[in-house]
Amino acid sequence: LEENEYFQLVTKDDCTTETQPGGQQFKQYFNTEKMKCETCSQNTSFQDVSSDGYSCVCRPGYRYSKDFGGSNIECVVCESQKARSADGWRCVTCNSGTTFNNQTKTCVPCAANNVPVERTVNGALVTSGGSQARICQRCSANTSLNVEGNRCERCTMLLKLNPSVSSCSCDPNNLAGGVCFPTTIVPLTISTLPLSSGSVESAYVKEHVQAAYLMCKDFVNITACQILSNLCVLSWYRYDDSPGTTTTCNLYRLILADLQKDYIPWLYYSQEGNRVLDDDKLTTEYTFSPASLLEYRVGRYTLNGTYLGISPVTGGLLQLCSDTTSRLNAAYTFGTYYEQTCSIPAIELWDTKTYQMEFYDLYIEFTRFGEQQLYSAPVKINNLEVNRGDTDNRGTDSQKWTLSRRFFMVDNVVSTGTDTTGGAATSTLPQYVRYAKDIEISVTLDSTLGNGRIFPPLMTITYDQVSLANAQAGATITPTFKVKYSMSLVAYLKDFQIAVGTLSTLGVIFAGYKTWAWSKRAGRLAIDFAAIVNFIFFVSGVLSNVFFVITFGIAFYFFIFYKRQSVVYLFLLEGSYYEEWLGLFGSAFALKCLQVAHMVATQCTVDIFFIDWEKPKGTLGIKADGSKKENPVSIWRTYFAANEWNEIQTCRKINHIFQIFAVVFFLNYVGFENTATKDPNGQVVKSSGDYQAPSDPMFRYAIAALVYLLVAFVQWLFFTLFYERFFEDKVRDFVDLCSMANISVFIMHQAQYGYYIHGRSVYGKADTNMKEMFEMMKKEEKDLVGQRGLLPNTEQQTFVMTLPRKLRLKYEEVLLAVALESAAGPQAGKEKGGLTEKQVEAYNIINKFLSTFIDHSLKSLDYQIRDKTLLESIMDTEFLDASEKGYFYNDNGHSFDQCLFYGNEMTLLLFDTLLFCIVDLIAKNFVLAGIITYIIIEIVALIRDHGGRKNLAKKTLVDERFLI
Amino acid sequence: LEENEYFQLVTKDDCTTETQPGGQQFKQYFNTEKMKCETCSQNTSFQDVSSDGYSCVCRPGYRYSKDFGGSNIECVVCESQKARSADGWRCVTCNSGTTFNNQTKTCVPCAANNVPVERTVNGALVTSGGSQARICQRCSANTSLNVEGNRCERCTMLLKLNPSVSSCSCDPNNLAGGVCFPTTIVPLTISTLPLSSGSVESAYVKEHVQAAYLMCKDFVNITACQILSNLCVLSWYRYDDSPGTTTTCNLYRLILADLQKDYIPWLYYSQEGNRVLDDDKLTTEYTFSPASLLEYRVGRYTLNGTYLGISPVTGGLLQLCSDTTSRLNAAYTFGTYYEQTCSIPAIELWDTKTYQMEFYDLYIEFTRFGEQQLYSAPVKINNLEVNRGDTDNRGTDSQKWTLSRRFFMVDNVVSTGTDTTGGAATSTLPQYVRYAKDIEISVTLDSTLGNGRIFPPLMTITYDQVSLANAQAGATITPTFKVKYSMSLVAYLKDFQIAVGTLSTLGVIFAGYKTWAWSKRAGRLAIDFAAIVNFIFFVSGVLSNVFFVITFGIAFYFFIFYKRQSVVYLFLLEGSYYEEWLGLFGSAFALKCLQVAHMVATQCTVDIFFIDWEKPKGTLGIKADGSKKENPVSIWRTYFAANEWNEIQTCRKINHIFQIFAVVFFLNYVGFENTATKDPNGQVVKSSGDYQAPSDPMFRYAIAALVYLLVAFVQWLFFTLFYERFFEDKVRDFVDLCSMANISVFIMHQAQYGYYIHGRSVYGKADTNMKEMFEMMKKEEKDLVGQRGLLPNTEQQTFVMTLPRKLRLKYEEVLLAVALESAAGPQAGKEKGGLTEKQVEAYNIINKFLSTFIDHSLKSLDYQIRDKTLLESIMDTEFLDASEKGYFYNDNGHSFDQCLFYGNEMTLLLFDTLLFCIVDLIAKNFVLAGIITYIIIEIVALIRDHGGRKNLAKKTLVDERFLI
Repeated sequence: LEENEYFQLVTKDDCTTETQPGGQQFKQYFNTEKMKCETCSQNTSFQDVSSDGYSCVCRPGYRYSKDFGGSNIECVVCESQKARSADGWRCVTCNSGTTFNNQTKTCVPCAANNVPVERTVNGALVTSGGSQARICQRCSANTSLNVEGNRCERCTMLLKLNPSVSSCSCDPNNLAGGVCFPTTIVPLTISTLPLSSGSVESAYVKEHVQAAYLMCKDFVNITACQILSNLCVLSWYRYDDSPGTTTTCNLYRLILADLQKDYIPWLYYSQEGNRVLDDDKLTTEYTFSPASLLEYRVGRYTLNGTYLGISPVTGGLLQLCSDTTSRLNAAYTFGTYYEQTCSIPAIELWDTKTYQMEFYDLYIEFTRFGEQQLYSAPVKINNLEVNRGDTDNRGTDSQKWTLSRRFFMVDNVVSTGTDTTGGAATSTLPQYVRYAKDIEISVTLDSTLGNGRIFPPLMTITYDQVSLANAQAGATITPTFKVKYSMSLVAYLKDFQIAVGTLSTLGVIFAGYKTWAWSKRAGRLAIDFAAIVNFIFFVSGVLSNVFFVITFGIAFYFFIFYKRQSVVYLFLLEGSYYEEWLGLFGSAFALKCLQVAHMVATQCTVDIFFIDWEKPKGTLGIKADGSKKENPVSIWRTYFAANEWNEIQTCRKINHIFQIFAVVFFLNYVGFENTATKDPNGQVVKSSGDYQAPSDPMFRYAIAALVYLLVAFVQWLFFTLFYERFFEDKVRDFVDLCSMANISVFIMHQAQYGYYIHGRSVYGKADTNMKEMFEMMKKEEKDLVGQRGLLPNTEQQTFVMTLPRKLRLKYEEVLLAVALESAAGPQAGKEKGGLTEKQVEAYNIINKFLSTFIDHSLKSLDYQIRDKTLLESIMDTEFLDASEKGYFYNDNGHSFDQCLFYGNEMTLLLFDTLLFCIVDLIAKNFVLAGIITYIIIEIVALIRDHGGRKNLAKKTLVDERFLI
Repeated sequence: LEENEYFQLVTKDDCTTETQPGGQQFKQYFNTEKMKCETCSQNTSFQDVSSDGYSCVCRPGYRYSKDFGGSNIECVVCESQKARSADGWRCVTCNSGTTFNNQTKTCVPCAANNVPVERTVNGALVTSGGSQARICQRCSANTSLNVEGNRCERCTMLLKLNPSVSSCSCDPNNLAGGVCFPTTIVPLTISTLPLSSGSVESAYVKEHVQAAYLMCKDFVNITACQILSNLCVLSWYRYDDSPGTTTTCNLYRLILADLQKDYIPWLYYSQEGNRVLDDDKLTTEYTFSPASLLEYRVGRYTLNGTYLGISPVTGGLLQLCSDTTSRLNAAYTFGTYYEQTCSIPAIELWDTKTYQMEFYDLYIEFTRFGEQQLYSAPVKINNLEVNRGDTDNRGTDSQKWTLSRRFFMVDNVVSTGTDTTGGAATSTLPQYVRYAKDIEISVTLDSTLGNGRIFPPLMTITYDQVSLANAQAGATITPTFKVKYSMSLVAYLKDFQIAVGTLSTLGVIFAGYKTWAWSKRAGRLAIDFAAIVNFIFFVSGVLSNVFFVITFGIAFYFFIFYKRQSVVYLFLLEGSYYEEWLGLFGSAFALKCLQVAHMVATQCTVDIFFIDWEKPKGTLGIKADGSKKENPVSIWRTYFAANEWNEIQTCRKINHIFQIFAVVFFLNYVGFENTATKDPNGQVVKSSGDYQAPSDPMFRYAIAALVYLLVAFVQWLFFTLFYERFFEDKVRDFVDLCSMANISVFIMHQAQYGYYIHGRSVYGKADTNMKEMFEMMKKEEKDLVGQRGLLPNTEQQTFVMTLPRKLRLKYEEVLLAVALESAAGPQAGKEKGGLTEKQVEAYNIINKFLSTFIDHSLKSLDYQIRDKTLLESIMDTEFLDASEKGYFYNDNGHSFDQCLFYGNEMTLLLFDTLLFCIVDLIAKNFVLAGIITYIIIEIVALIRDHGGRKNLAKKTLVDERFLI
């Protein structure tokens, strides 16, 4: 053996040349083991190549004397005028009806209906003139030559129909499809099969439809009835309502009308579609746990009706797309919404081994009283037409549907095309393959009966075709296979409407109340434009929350109860129900955006002032007018406090960056998103080899919002119970700083409502050097000084306040002058962005005025400190009239965070959650949702930060350069 | 037709009961169309059920008068003593060698080698006594009864071997495997096939091995040679080296030694494995673009050697796991590292239609001088053993391998098990199925020739088996199919070693230089412990960068050049080469961690001091000793500056959060990670239906690091060129603030080296009220005051400084007292965490001392301001000796950010990149890498922040409460 060898790729067709060693011609055969042409052992007069090309054979007129395959054969020439016998090992003379042909070296064939004989039945040699011979004998009565041509046999097929004849020959007028009928045939003109547009000639139909019809009708031949039915199925059940023999299905229906029905297969449902699909005889209780299967069974038949047994449909029997078995079988796991599609080179469909043409009768297996039953399942052929062009089966009105029983997956045999017109067939392949392009199984839960029972599932098939020419040019087909589930959602709709109606009404009422509370705080008694605008924003906020609760509630309900159901009672929302839910979800987000915008706008326009309690220390000599020139009080403590306030404006109660990372971690990396598939499988870790059902937007929303809120809750717990106590509480630190800096913060959230942080130093001074600061702090640690509270001997430093109208008027009056000047636009005397003299003066006036007010030193304007009543706290309002006298209410220590992001965490969190979910809804990707959410949150914070800084600079007169 | 019907599921076996309408017994047959049992048309004496159960047949003694299938038949009783004829439609008497059996109503069978005759060859009826009859005739000489039993035919098979005999009977001693040999047989004892442990009896082997051996050896029968060869393949090529007829393969080898080799298939390579695999005759130029295919071809044979043609291996011919065609065929796209595995219920292997037992000869098709050639490709059977137990084929020494040619995928026919021992077969199924469990195709690039040529690819097969009992108990099998590529990496190794060696050496030298520069700045002249420690950290930093450059360079080179190559010249690193690369990558990260830790530690221990230039204003009366009591200078500006410094400590030049989100966005969402697959396909968007090659860690590293660095670069451009100019520059803002607060910052990064921010107010004072501040700012805007620089009329506010030793000593002396006190531990007189009197005093001393120094007011300690020379800038050192006199070097405006994260962006960025990549290397998930990177970065920043705050509080004596 030569190793590492290569050789030219040859096929048996390449072995036609003859070799000439030693001047003789030798034929070549194809050695199948060496993949090479090899020479026969004897020259061309002795040996030729076999018809398959894989071995040598003896030429006519030569008999074998050795035959071990390949070239290991030996031929011996027959005597003159003798031919090789049929078994190849002898030579015979040609006698009695045949003669020796000297050209071909064979006996000439026997005449028609004559049989060549070399041996009798018992193997005795026929001899003639002393030598072994081949003779011809005429077939006897009632016999004809068999297929092999070596014996006459009874022509049973003909005699069956024509028992009276003795000859096996048939009058051509009685012949149809190879069957000899006793009477003259009236020819039918059916020879085509339908395409999705137009039709194709079929040699098979032309040949068999007449015989099948007559055999079935007149002789009740079961095979013939099967063939006729299958031809009707192949013509997509199309029939004319007018009686007549114009279509195969008409023939079927004619027989059905005449005959007892037992002999002909059941093809059409005679009931209307809705009646068929309303049936409640399927008693299977479908459950998710343990997982039920949709137990489809098919009775399988070949084209001529040979029964191939009853099979389950698993293993891809009805799926043209190939895939792993487990993924294919996932289609029949009850409750798995299934979608499969792929692209297949169309030419593969012509492979009749892979795509066998079979006919299927569809059943569902179920158990009743302990016995296995078969339920006949309906099939809807979308290509079915009655009276050409009536396409009711494609419509949605189930009453007009014509349902049927039998179907095929691929017809790659009978659509042979137009080569029956007499021209030579250009190809032995069919000109068209017709196949089930789209299959959809639709399962509807019978909610009225409960117990996981279903109506008869409907399989809808749409056929299409592909032509040989296109396929050979590389066309591909994209068959689809879908399984979907539905249920009546009437009960759901009622609940949904009640929930939305009730909660929205309550929400609007609540928003009205909030507006009333607001207008009281804002000092507006009439319902003016501002009140209406505020009402709109309050409604936005409240309805957004309501819608969020409803949509999340629905999504979560469906998510949990769909996945956890044992006996099936729930499928997913679909169609308009789903769209309504989606609309509500979108509204929730849009309204939440409005609310956040309102919140940011409000916070960016809040009135805030830092009251400096510091008194001037010492003097700097005497002024020209004789008064003492006071040592100016340093503004740096105010700068410091303002700077810190600026920094905590966009602080959140939770770490929103970590929040996003954690959520994406759980959803994407840990794989919680895998639970959102439309199947009963709620596992987090799914094998990549298994079928992955499409994910449901509602489920994704449910799991995403749940994870978002849970992570936020855990963060909130961590920050509230742990971090802020033991590490850092920026809000508390700010109050501390105020105390140390001898600065109070006076915030008017609405015109006559606000928050007060009492930061008066327990020393009365803070503007001092490090040594004194150190001593002061030491004393406070040792409790040697008073407490920080506004009231003596209290710790309460923060208050909610309702302010008398007069105070507000005074405040506005002072600021108005400044505002007017600002409004006058850039002037020569005014620096861009800088402070004016007037503003500084206004600052001093307000500082004086407010500190006097806090000190109770204004007779006409006073306030009183009290606790809020429980009812006031619950209703978030104040009952006492503050028109003459203000009220300071003790609070929880950080009521002023209402002006910061910190105190509005709930609103922001819901905004983040909705944003995250809505991005995922659109992009179906939690990573992208996280990224977009991060960016939007940062932009909102940036706007708040920027607006807040401008506002702070404007209201407290601290230059922006110190707000870094 | 009853519609919506269901009925009991019955099979033909359920139709055994007889019905009794009208008192008569009727057999039932299974109606294949209705799936029901139906009654035959005549009672049990007339009709019985056919053997397939699907129709009725006439009982013996009854002839047919009608037969249209199903129950549509009619039987007529024959006259007494007559039997039904063979064609079924007549009755015959039994004569001449047969008699009528009244029990069975049939003629008794003819004697051995006798043929029953009812019609002669030409269909003439045999009559006897005037009635149609069935007679027996003895077969003539040289004939025996044919398989159908209706004719005597020449016993060619026997006569071929024994041409002299005239009888077709054979002496049992000459009989083997149904073949009659001319001589007496010496029986062989081979009857088993090997299993992965033990062996299994095979009826087929036992029956055929002897005949095949003799026929092949003595008569050169090609079919016999094929069978013998296939049996040798089925016994996994196992043979004993000792001559003898103990194994099938020994028989094969005996014949091979005797015979001319042309007649017996080539199974074994006689050359050693390494010689076979070294061959360079495959001249195909494999390219990625256009994509080459690995053009495997197989010659297909059945068990008995019938040639089935030559086929490509696409469509899963060699892959037991089913999948879509495109995914299956991806295995043969050149350059695609392929791995496929799945779990198959073992029982499916017994399906001989799906898993056909075929034998394959492996070839590679290639083109040479325009002609298609076949190259014989080697196969390595891992189960091959010579002399039982020698498993060299499993080893790695290719010289010891015995390579072979032919293989099979599944043997589900011949491993019939032990039912040949005489006991009744419990099952017709084979007891074992043996299958190719693991197939691995290994392609090696021939780097010496170039031009994309390869050595002969090696297919390695490991067989395993599964028993019928296990399969029926639900066992599954997990076959694997792999394709891998390799090349000689000698050239690469040289380059790798040179790069690592050279660059590392340079790196160590550079680190040594940095240590020298450091020790000068730290004022250490000897090589002490600190210098060594610093050297280690410098080496870490430099080597980390070197390793990063090398690993990234290699990864990027392989990534780009692998994906972009047209003619293939590159495959991936593997084995120890890959591990070395991985080690370098790990080292880069570990060293970078050291560097970052060092950086954080250095920054957290830097000496920093805020110099307050403010002079006391006015007095607060007279002290007891008569001196004026000075109005204390407010510390709040220092607090403010320290607070801001604290805030910018962990500021980064780029937004590191956005960085992570952007990187994850590009890698995960946009899909850059899809390019990192081990195949030629470098597309970002890949169809989910296509095969996804496993991703390569090196490629992932290349694309991840690239994206990380590019995004960072874009961010850096944005922040440097745009954001910091037009929006916010925190570092610049801090310098501004210092100027306005009249505070200078004095930072000693090393003992005698540091940075100085000159913040002396142009007014000489800042501790004033809003009005004055406002006026001062206005004046500055109008350029009415001097400039801010340290030198008059300059703007230069920031400096790098080298300090005289004396200054450092003084500084340490003052702080030492404080440090000693702190070290004394908690005492009664010292408050926890508070400042001591001594510390405040030290603060005042240092403030005074440093401000005097800056003012050039110390005679013995002075400094000079100058520019750094270009060389000094490049070499990052100072040439001038600062032991007596300090030097202040003008800088770029933010040299002090070396003490902040801001100035070390490159180090941090590389740290982030390496961290991101190493997490991905472990977890193979960019989302998780992003999350972990975020968390680690935050932790590092937290440590830096915390440590920096403590340090700031300690060094500047600003209470931590003000550093919020």
